[in-house]
Amino acid sequence: MAANAAAVNDELTRLLPVGDGPEHRVHDAMRYSALDGGKRLRPFLAVQSASLFNVSPAAALRVGCALEMVHCYSLIHDDLPCMDDDDLRRGRPTCHRQFDEATALLAGDALLTRSFEILAAQSTHPDPAVRCELVWELAHASGGQGMVGGQMVDLQAAELSMDVAAITRLQQMKTGRLISFACEAGAILGKAPSSQRLALKNYAHDLGLAFQIADDLLDVEGDETQVGKKLGKDAGAGKATFVSLLGPDRARAQAAMLAEQACAHLDSFGPAAELLRLTARYVVSRSV
Amino acid sequence: MAANAAAVNDELTRLLPVGDGPEHRVHDAMRYSALDGGKRLRPFLAVQSASLFNVSPAAALRVGCALEMVHCYSLIHDDLPCMDDDDLRRGRPTCHRQFDEATALLAGDALLTRSFEILAAQSTHPDPAVRCELVWELAHASGGQGMVGGQMVDLQAAELSMDVAAITRLQQMKTGRLISFACEAGAILGKAPSSQRLALKNYAHDLGLAFQIADDLLDVEGDETQVGKKLGKDAGAGKATFVSLLGPDRARAQAAMLAEQACAHLDSFGPAAELLRLTARYVVSRSV
Repeated sequence: MAANAAAVNDELTRLLPVGDGPEHRVHDAMRYSALDGGKRLRPFLAVQSASLFNVSPAAALRVGCALEMVHCYSLIHDDLPCMDDDDLRRGRPTCHRQFDEATALLAGDALLTRSFEILAAQSTHPDPAVRCELVWELAHASGGQGMVGGQMVDLQAAELSMDVAAITRLQQMKTGRLISFACEAGAILGKAPSSQRLALKNYAHDLGLAFQIADDLLDVEGDETQVGKKLGKDAGAGKATFVSLLGPDRARAQAAMLAEQACAHLDSFGPAAELLRLTARYVVSRSV
Repeated sequence: MAANAAAVNDELTRLLPVGDGPEHRVHDAMRYSALDGGKRLRPFLAVQSASLFNVSPAAALRVGCALEMVHCYSLIHDDLPCMDDDDLRRGRPTCHRQFDEATALLAGDALLTRSFEILAAQSTHPDPAVRCELVWELAHASGGQGMVGGQMVDLQAAELSMDVAAITRLQQMKTGRLISFACEAGAILGKAPSSQRLALKNYAHDLGLAFQIADDLLDVEGDETQVGKKLGKDAGAGKATFVSLLGPDRARAQAAMLAEQACAHLDSFGPAAELLRLTARYVVSRSV
């Protein structure tokens, strides 16, 4: 994952714009937020799922970086004062604290837009039908019926009385859809048969939920310095989470069960999918 | 233009999402801002430029609507308190006044995302290469080196001492690029030869500047009730405009000259381009 994160940083450095006029301020903000590290889990999943098929690693990395731009845009907008109002992200000031609110807003907008520009570019994949499918799937996963829809539900979460089913639906939208795109991207790039794409989608479904439960556990039990962002926010905001609904022990057991279930979906890939299996186990045991 | 605006409203009504969970709030905000009227100049240009070639009117309308979503998203974000902080848009409360800031932010994000989802969808055009080109061009026109870059420059405009050349560059980015996309979209859909696409691009270039000068004149001389938004903002913010730099008379003459120059680029299309010529003349004489 560390090697992948370094490759993602290099590629993002190449893919992000550099302006020569006064607009360079928004490019600086895009770089500040997109090049600030992070686990790069989503590009890692894209590259690993692509490795199961006969896909050029450069194409997988590009698609992973486009996806990471969408993830970074969502963090910038999520951190804004009108949303979560966060000062810290990955151990550094959030984009609007480092620059200003307007610049952060525009940097998020531009990262989202750049992501689709990259997916549609000829250099990403020679087949335009593949590129169109990537654009459509990423837009569908991240828009008003996907990630943004999930953010909208999340904003109302304190007022809604949410049970485990409602929280599961919210988290599927808010974080699950992008993780599914990451895993399906390899199958799209490799024009994989639908049974193999479905196996990856099922893996991603369970992985995404396991990831979110682990996130909820970190929010309660994690070390703020290590995680690099403010913790204890959900409880503070009066929002139900998997941990508040199930208790930490059952939540931990549920996450471990989901990770194993995720791995089971990969049986047909044999040893080639070993890193994806390790990823599922890492995700539920991580401290960052 | 009125008939086109009605068709755009119908098509947007079909294309915008309807949610059944608590996420419907962001869909309501998208509809509120995208279905609130306006001249629909950009879709009109897309439909008219497509009519010069052998393009299905339904495809041109869809592309025009995707483009209009990008325009509406930019207005929602532009109106936010951290940007222009406007209360009124097209005679109604702005999105964040009608809903709240977070919902408006997400509605803008979701409109931008939905636009690319529509362009990439098979039902827009049978040829994926055409759809990819549309996605790429719209992303390029609206991102950090296009419209969003222009918004970034505009935010700093009061601190920069801008001459006519700098204002021209700013407006080309902020409004010109989307107008160019509108006019080139027809050529892309129709797989037009590059000479014809260039003619439309040149038309759009002059039309875009003429449009902006007319906008600056309206900001000084217009009727706030009729225009439906707050006027006199640029002078109030200490920003240079075409009108403050050239004076109203020279600005008016320049806009008229650009409109005629725009028309001249269409000579090779003959009578088929008459509505595009009328549009150029309308744009500089409008009061809304």
